[in-house]
Amino acid sequence: MINAEVKKKFRAIVGDEYALDSDLDRFGYSYDSSFVPLVPANNPDMVVRPLTTEQVAAVMAIADEHGIPVTPRGAASGRTGGSVPLMGGISLSLDRMTNILELDEKNMMVTAEAGVRTIDLYNHCAAKNLFFPPDPASWKMSTIGGNVAENAGGMRAVKYGVTGDYVMGLQVVLADGTVVNTGGKAVKNVTGYDLTSLFVGSEGTLGIVTRALFKLIPMPKTRGTIRLMFGSLDAGCETVNRLLQENIVPAAAEIMDKTSLDAVARKRSAAFDPAVESCVILETDGEDQAALDAQAKRIAAVARECGVLEFQVAQSQAESDELWAIRRTMSSAVAALAPNRIGEDISVPRSAFPEVVKRIKAISEKHGLTIAVFGHAGDGNLHPSILCDLNNPEEAERAHHAADDIFAAALAVGGTLSGEHGIGITKKPYIYKALGEAGVKLMQSVKQSLDPKGILNPGKIW
Amino acid sequence: MINAEVKKKFRAIVGDEYALDSDLDRFGYSYDSSFVPLVPANNPDMVVRPLTTEQVAAVMAIADEHGIPVTPRGAASGRTGGSVPLMGGISLSLDRMTNILELDEKNMMVTAEAGVRTIDLYNHCAAKNLFFPPDPASWKMSTIGGNVAENAGGMRAVKYGVTGDYVMGLQVVLADGTVVNTGGKAVKNVTGYDLTSLFVGSEGTLGIVTRALFKLIPMPKTRGTIRLMFGSLDAGCETVNRLLQENIVPAAAEIMDKTSLDAVARKRSAAFDPAVESCVILETDGEDQAALDAQAKRIAAVARECGVLEFQVAQSQAESDELWAIRRTMSSAVAALAPNRIGEDISVPRSAFPEVVKRIKAISEKHGLTIAVFGHAGDGNLHPSILCDLNNPEEAERAHHAADDIFAAALAVGGTLSGEHGIGITKKPYIYKALGEAGVKLMQSVKQSLDPKGILNPGKIW
Repeated sequence: MINAEVKKKFRAIVGDEYALDSDLDRFGYSYDSSFVPLVPANNPDMVVRPLTTEQVAAVMAIADEHGIPVTPRGAASGRTGGSVPLMGGISLSLDRMTNILELDEKNMMVTAEAGVRTIDLYNHCAAKNLFFPPDPASWKMSTIGGNVAENAGGMRAVKYGVTGDYVMGLQVVLADGTVVNTGGKAVKNVTGYDLTSLFVGSEGTLGIVTRALFKLIPMPKTRGTIRLMFGSLDAGCETVNRLLQENIVPAAAEIMDKTSLDAVARKRSAAFDPAVESCVILETDGEDQAALDAQAKRIAAVARECGVLEFQVAQSQAESDELWAIRRTMSSAVAALAPNRIGEDISVPRSAFPEVVKRIKAISEKHGLTIAVFGHAGDGNLHPSILCDLNNPEEAERAHHAADDIFAAALAVGGTLSGEHGIGITKKPYIYKALGEAGVKLMQSVKQSLDPKGILNPGKIW
Repeated sequence: MINAEVKKKFRAIVGDEYALDSDLDRFGYSYDSSFVPLVPANNPDMVVRPLTTEQVAAVMAIADEHGIPVTPRGAASGRTGGSVPLMGGISLSLDRMTNILELDEKNMMVTAEAGVRTIDLYNHCAAKNLFFPPDPASWKMSTIGGNVAENAGGMRAVKYGVTGDYVMGLQVVLADGTVVNTGGKAVKNVTGYDLTSLFVGSEGTLGIVTRALFKLIPMPKTRGTIRLMFGSLDAGCETVNRLLQENIVPAAAEIMDKTSLDAVARKRSAAFDPAVESCVILETDGEDQAALDAQAKRIAAVARECGVLEFQVAQSQAESDELWAIRRTMSSAVAALAPNRIGEDISVPRSAFPEVVKRIKAISEKHGLTIAVFGHAGDGNLHPSILCDLNNPEEAERAHHAADDIFAAALAVGGTLSGEHGIGITKKPYIYKALGEAGVKLMQSVKQSLDPKGILNPGKIW
């Protein structure tokens, strides 16, 4: 609990209007887009919505003085509970910090505040023909502070990498309110430790990211879509792997299994060739149509060698939309198969993709639960969806055991707990298995040095 | 000083043959390829050459117990004194750990021990048509442990990035002898903090890197060379910038100023057109000769718009060698201009390259010293060479003032102290100016948490 006098101090910093503590407001900031239960509610004691880095620094200085937990929050679109205020205290919402401060066309870099939405940053840069590639599924609502804190990925990661690959520098408010600036516009920079990368993906536990400097690349001039149908999941994976080995790198390479395809077929009242066991959708990009055509030809050759059943290149935007429709409707189509869907996020070595899917099928049979699998084949990041009824306690237990088994399978094939969603609350139980005692201890010692009082997003990661 | 009993323990771990403490051996490990003076010698008390990670761990456990400084060392090709044992103790030489443990062709990754030479790793991968791009100038002697510790760059960084961009995971022995493994083969990985990036570029001050997992890319099928001569340095910089903005990314883009060119001309008894003020040499690569030809055509168009004086595409390997000869002979040609050459390494935003070169010319005039400038134009990383006679105390003082001014100029245009050489000993005096009090303090707190006794490479960075 925060006492009245301290609350007054927070109000003085951000203004009464932006320091909220009604029950309704507190409840509104108690959840995110993860499966963390809403009841009992994880209410913060107060919601504080600063407008500037200086205000964030002032808030942190007081929080530090009084040992008040601070849980930073962007758009709360996170999937693992990162912005859920587990220990009360302050929900520090950065949603008012929405300035894009500079678009440096000459150096192809952009500086933006934490609360800028991903799509707004993308559009701002695109207007100058510059490309900000990270595209988490939530990009229409997610904000860049959260993207940085979770090191958000997306479909284009196979060619263009994840958020962290574009972060050149950060402005961060530390636990005690100190403001530090890391990195900068020099492309090569080995002056001291790479603190920028340390903050990227640290889930708000090491500091509050208030501003980020991103590098950009020239916007690809043309884009194309190709849909491939295969008689096995292995053939789909093999095709994507072979493409990468031959340096044919698609901008996106999404793969879906039979269960996912069936769900889509039901939803769209369409039918696929019953021989189809997996579908791969590729986005290609390049300098001009001739480059795309040449790419498509090479892709077709590889796919044929891998036994592709259907190979379709979109000839228009409408056709492209139609080909992508499978992928776009899949999430809701899969969700419609059962009252609840536990959507997971694991990441494995690219070569282990078929093996881990096989193991997930076995887990599905073992627990008598349908598990649909789709993912980013190009980078080994997959999203198994466990379909279940969480109101049925026995089924809920089976579902959670299935999730345990999925994480174990990921680790067994040399993979990891999360490719793009982070650990947050929901994956904490598995962290020691993933990193080992020594690994966790090392991270904790870094955490201890940056946040000795443990006020930054307490209760997360471990 | 290490007492006899403790020395015995180190001998027991690595064997008498690999624990050296004669005066000659100790002196042999007292210096590297930097300008740190040889006298008075920075001798270690003992040189220890382990063969395995387990031996490194055992050595560190004893060093920790007795508070003995440990300075890790690869090939000692570093340019800032990173492997110079400033405080005595142990020189921990990883030169015997030369195994390439696995080349995983399917995932396009390679695992190697710290003592593997860069060129050997390159060749090992190239034999399977896989490309390990980082190419520090010292790549024929430097070892990958040192590359990781310094986050070594190279000429191909403009297109392919630096060493850190290829590190997927590390095996690291911590100060107390604990062995941790970071990262892994999953391309996307957000499980906990990015410790891999924290160790990359940490100059041996946070842990001993014993093993690294690198990602690889398919080997480019063809390479080309283009040499461009310009009437001004600005025109050369402008051309490279314009290329990048139009998404024509050369594999290397080296630029040299008039002073450097004159030195080469003198050495090779050749003459350049007196109108030439700068030279840019590009390496291009691609799928086939047609792709290279198309690239060369686009490059020519941009260069013409920027007023190029001469544009020459190599038509054979012999011609390519001839075009690169300017760059390859430049270092020794420049060095021949004076008894001493202080070769520096600064990195600035790409757009500030012409401005910082202008400032360096002013610094040259102010101190009455010739300063030749060459560098990697594509990424803003430049190497000014201060030509002087260090045996002349007054001139030595001027040279050091000139170096001070160069660092100040780099920072003034938004750049940084080092693009690829690290801070080590030689750039320590400037670290606070570059990072600010808060930045250095933050790094020191990370250092303190990983190395509480301060035994890992003491006396470096700050």
